[in-house]
Amino acid sequence: MTYCAALKLDKGLVFGSDSRTNAGVDDIATFRKMKIFEKPNDRVLVVLSSGNLSITQAALTMVEKRFHRWEGGETLLTTSSLFDAANLLGETLREVQQREGPYLAQNNIDFSASFLLGGQIQGEEPRLFRIYSQGNFIEATRETPYFQIGETKYGKPILDRVITPDLSLMDAAKSLLVSFDSTMRSNISVGFPIDLLCLEKDVFSTRLRWTLDEDDPSFRTLGREWSDGLKHLAASLTGLPPPSSEDRGGP
Amino acid sequence: MTYCAALKLDKGLVFGSDSRTNAGVDDIATFRKMKIFEKPNDRVLVVLSSGNLSITQAALTMVEKRFHRWEGGETLLTTSSLFDAANLLGETLREVQQREGPYLAQNNIDFSASFLLGGQIQGEEPRLFRIYSQGNFIEATRETPYFQIGETKYGKPILDRVITPDLSLMDAAKSLLVSFDSTMRSNISVGFPIDLLCLEKDVFSTRLRWTLDEDDPSFRTLGREWSDGLKHLAASLTGLPPPSSEDRGGP
Repeated sequence: MTYCAALKLDKGLVFGSDSRTNAGVDDIATFRKMKIFEKPNDRVLVVLSSGNLSITQAALTMVEKRFHRWEGGETLLTTSSLFDAANLLGETLREVQQREGPYLAQNNIDFSASFLLGGQIQGEEPRLFRIYSQGNFIEATRETPYFQIGETKYGKPILDRVITPDLSLMDAAKSLLVSFDSTMRSNISVGFPIDLLCLEKDVFSTRLRWTLDEDDPSFRTLGREWSDGLKHLAASLTGLPPPSSEDRGGP
Repeated sequence: MTYCAALKLDKGLVFGSDSRTNAGVDDIATFRKMKIFEKPNDRVLVVLSSGNLSITQAALTMVEKRFHRWEGGETLLTTSSLFDAANLLGETLREVQQREGPYLAQNNIDFSASFLLGGQIQGEEPRLFRIYSQGNFIEATRETPYFQIGETKYGKPILDRVITPDLSLMDAAKSLLVSFDSTMRSNISVGFPIDLLCLEKDVFSTRLRWTLDEDDPSFRTLGREWSDGLKHLAASLTGLPPPSSEDRGGP
């Protein structure tokens, strides 16, 4: 399993990804799921991956190879918009799925895969896309300012309640880490290290970047502060109304 | 879908259940999922249901019929322990599954079903069981003081972080409602009204009981207080360490 999430805010983008891959509880490995494509002062693109690792690796390698060889066609470093970059990644994913899929399907192996692609290209605002396993994609908006892929449910409530586009990147990053903490408490197939990256709007730099291990003191502090804070908050909630013991057609 | 959860605390038990049943987004109905079996000063048993409604209804009706006819065999109102009550409900579920299952399986209809059964019988401590679709069951302990069935993931982090056996029933009930609020924000197949019941240890009464509708002001207040509190809490978290922009074998 995997947990990746990305937030689109007024001041830029925040990305987070775990690093565990498993093919059963007895076949666990560490693979980082955040990949960065940079061209100084022109663009920073970030890809987060979820799903069948052989599929996502192949698609990303193909995208990268095209970049290094600087072929005639477009690459993630030449497209003029993030929409075109999402399209390119989606097309590449389709290519890999079509080549590999039938062999995996013969053995009932799930070959679905998906990506989050976000970043900024000179001349555009920062943008964030979710690319589905079929290669189609959607873009984040102010109403839905974040996307998740992988084991998404445990970490969704905190994002739902806290993330608004006007948050600072650092405050959003802390909430995103809480979302990872919530997920990792419940699903052992989501694991350390966590890669965290903040992209400030119009800065085109990856300097705000962290790799947090299991024993990272700040991550542990954050988890403890959050749990303690929730307990206090729960205790401070307004009480319930008087019991309604009369039966209103109920149980 | 369904969301039901029950908590086992030092001071008693807390139960919550939603009321939505669906067979596709265009086939939604309201069915309460909390059923109470009472015998004054002797016992209060509470059953929460999840899964195929025809299966859970049939099993509960059979358990109830046996009670009303007061047949020779044991019923939920005569068993001398909650363990035996869980066994009886599990056996009844197996009976229904065996009778109905093959017909549903022919059409690939999911006939899985599960129950939470909790309460207190005179002479015993309050106890809480989770009965699986196969009729087997497990009991809650101090280390794992709660069970959930149905759409469990969205509402789990709050329970994980807040519920400890020493909580008061009312504080635990409020946290349970937050867990429902988190779930209903993300899964529209979990819906109002919410049935909420607190069973105080050694009291054998269902007087602490609520049915909360969508427009219940206290539920709305609770959800708003929680969201506002989380925003404040998130903003108050200790900051991250300095960025680690050097590559540690990473993305």
